[in-house]
Amino acid sequence: MERILTKELHSHLNQSATLKGWVDVRRDHGKLMFVDLRDRSGTVQLVILPAHEEAYKAAQDIRAEWVIEIEGEVHARPEHMKNEKEDNGDVEIEVTALSVVSAAETLPFERNTEVNLDTLLDYRPLTLRNDRERRIFKVQSEIVNAYRDALRKRDFIEFQAPKIVGGDAEGGAHVFKIEYLNDKTAYLATSPQLYKQVMVGVYERVYSIGDVFRAEKHSTTRHLNEYTSLDAEMGFICDHTDIMDLLSDVLRDIISELKKSTKEVFDDFGVSLPKCPEKFPHMKLKEAQELIYKETKEDCRDEKDLAPEHERWLSEYAKKEYDSDFIFITHFPREKTAFYAYDDPEDEGYTKYFDLLFRGVELCSGGQRMHEYQKLKEKMVWKGLDPEKFEFYLQAFKYGMPPHGGWGMGLERLTQKFLNLENVKEATLFPREINRIDARLSESE
Amino acid sequence: MERILTKELHSHLNQSATLKGWVDVRRDHGKLMFVDLRDRSGTVQLVILPAHEEAYKAAQDIRAEWVIEIEGEVHARPEHMKNEKEDNGDVEIEVTALSVVSAAETLPFERNTEVNLDTLLDYRPLTLRNDRERRIFKVQSEIVNAYRDALRKRDFIEFQAPKIVGGDAEGGAHVFKIEYLNDKTAYLATSPQLYKQVMVGVYERVYSIGDVFRAEKHSTTRHLNEYTSLDAEMGFICDHTDIMDLLSDVLRDIISELKKSTKEVFDDFGVSLPKCPEKFPHMKLKEAQELIYKETKEDCRDEKDLAPEHERWLSEYAKKEYDSDFIFITHFPREKTAFYAYDDPEDEGYTKYFDLLFRGVELCSGGQRMHEYQKLKEKMVWKGLDPEKFEFYLQAFKYGMPPHGGWGMGLERLTQKFLNLENVKEATLFPREINRIDARLSESE
Repeated sequence: MERILTKELHSHLNQSATLKGWVDVRRDHGKLMFVDLRDRSGTVQLVILPAHEEAYKAAQDIRAEWVIEIEGEVHARPEHMKNEKEDNGDVEIEVTALSVVSAAETLPFERNTEVNLDTLLDYRPLTLRNDRERRIFKVQSEIVNAYRDALRKRDFIEFQAPKIVGGDAEGGAHVFKIEYLNDKTAYLATSPQLYKQVMVGVYERVYSIGDVFRAEKHSTTRHLNEYTSLDAEMGFICDHTDIMDLLSDVLRDIISELKKSTKEVFDDFGVSLPKCPEKFPHMKLKEAQELIYKETKEDCRDEKDLAPEHERWLSEYAKKEYDSDFIFITHFPREKTAFYAYDDPEDEGYTKYFDLLFRGVELCSGGQRMHEYQKLKEKMVWKGLDPEKFEFYLQAFKYGMPPHGGWGMGLERLTQKFLNLENVKEATLFPREINRIDARLSESE
Repeated sequence: MERILTKELHSHLNQSATLKGWVDVRRDHGKLMFVDLRDRSGTVQLVILPAHEEAYKAAQDIRAEWVIEIEGEVHARPEHMKNEKEDNGDVEIEVTALSVVSAAETLPFERNTEVNLDTLLDYRPLTLRNDRERRIFKVQSEIVNAYRDALRKRDFIEFQAPKIVGGDAEGGAHVFKIEYLNDKTAYLATSPQLYKQVMVGVYERVYSIGDVFRAEKHSTTRHLNEYTSLDAEMGFICDHTDIMDLLSDVLRDIISELKKSTKEVFDDFGVSLPKCPEKFPHMKLKEAQELIYKETKEDCRDEKDLAPEHERWLSEYAKKEYDSDFIFITHFPREKTAFYAYDDPEDEGYTKYFDLLFRGVELCSGGQRMHEYQKLKEKMVWKGLDPEKFEFYLQAFKYGMPPHGGWGMGLERLTQKFLNLENVKEATLFPREINRIDARLSESE
């Protein structure tokens, strides 16, 4: 008989069915045995009676996480046994045959046990089977889908950005070195930025979804050494506000798709889907600093960036004043932004750059980019970079580039903040960090 | 006035319109000037007359690849000037205003000039703007979309596999080393294989699309040091033939989507979309070798793998005998396949592994994987690997794993062979190779 899924049981009431899956829980009541069977679509309660001798015998051995195949009759449960809170809580299967597909050793802890972060990651192949973890990464996969759909419908083309790069594009220090072929040194890309810009010259509108790498040693709740970046770049813009509008629309689309696909996960996690006003509020860094000073008496007006506590304060302010979970902070100083950030001629010393804050953290950064060949080269020199090392990239500008801009947004942080998880690593399948690449590094060497 | 695209011109006949784009070609006829304007959707001919003085003056400077903005009247061309072969060959725009958005320097060669592979790659940011290159990577992006859709509709979940790994999973030599944090050494993943298998334990059906890395020094027309791998893995299979059937269906879906989205590219390239019979033909390696011996008298019956010429011969055979561009070769020897390949108990010494040949090359490899914990550990030892180094991965098997299998398929090679390109680098945006990471390595150091 062909396998059916637990989610299909209602169309097989009072019929025989074959199911396959994992033993979620096994409860031995002596005369009869209950087993919750789990497959990719949900769970169902199996009833195993001594009357079905072979099945009953086979069921003696099975334990949690064993993989089994069963045949049985699908029944509606008696009224008083129905449980609305349970998946398939109104049906059960009387098992007539049971075979073990694959045994499991005794678990270090039961499925769905709450453990600390280190244990969660030490046992990742097992803890990913928890309801909570399965839901987190289901949401993550839906975010990726919705992101892609939002851009595709706006005429964006997907491309694959290389991860091995010849130089450290941004001129920063936090880059991983690779032993490339023939004793050459290469690096791991910290972003697909330069390639996105090249691709604007080809298709005007492009996006890419892929891993980027930061060789930073900090161990915080919001940093990773490898993460998935949701990138986009668009040509023929007026300025950075076109990019901010597009990003707002894309986020709105993602949220509305999540409402359709995984609303119940948000309910289970006790978090509400983000609030988006008609237009996301925005202010310049200087204005934000003045506001913080006025309202809190804390003086950060000479700072070139926002401190984490100010990001949190501004997020709360946006929520209170605009009923928005999002707020854009624009115009950061030239010294603090990358060489490709567009200098605002009307605000000397500042660039048409933005950070998007969401529930207290920077969710995304972006802005308009330099597109004039000569000015771009001058900016590089001003930044202490050697334009000759960027000759390949600079071709895009030498041979005609429209005004353009875009953003980069970390998928894991987006997932974390949407689901209100404490640590970004909870939203990362296999986090790379200072002390861990799957196994803990100190132990594995 | 809001910008319209060249593809929207027909709904603006006899109206004014604003367009933005690149100067594709400029033809100065003295009294009047023609400019082909290119945007992301196509091209259109602009007519610039001395009567519109300012525009005519501005047009004197412009050259190929300059970015311009124009206003003008959209006209139907006189009957005898219509050109069916041209994009928008039945309309033209009489320009009333023209401004330069961004200048370009003189090109090293005209757009669409045929150049050798090295020049094509040296000038990648420019040559990607060729019609041919734009089409190749449009097809590539459609392949990725179709691949994803084909799996999503079959209940597969996408996940992000890490690229930094702690060890060389397959035990092979061709792996890039990374200087990880705190003087630890890490590696670039040669495939997401181990993570896919872990994820089968979580969701049963998963896929991932991402870069993989091979530190191989060869310089052939079909190898890359970094490429995008289209991966999938599925649990609860009977054997490798379930995977072969699924792969056939996915490829059929991709081909049918390409027929809808980019059929005209295939026509332009003079290649036909691949032929898929009802069922893709398949044979065991041994049978293939016997067949080759019988038909060609060439004796490769003792070989453990197929030589490129035998892959070509088998592809031609499949075409002739089954009218199929595809043929599966299964059951490769245990020594030649990875530790996770499933040993066929009915064919001692061989595994339930397959290569899918397509138009003369291996397009994809896959098969059933070992899922029994003890046997998998034994196989590792037999392969000379230390199971202790795989403890993290092995948890998936220790705690109950169903029979499963999957494949990995190179996106660039797929694009290359579908479009019948000579070299896989033509189907790679920014190929990483022994002598090149964007710029040529010998020159850049």
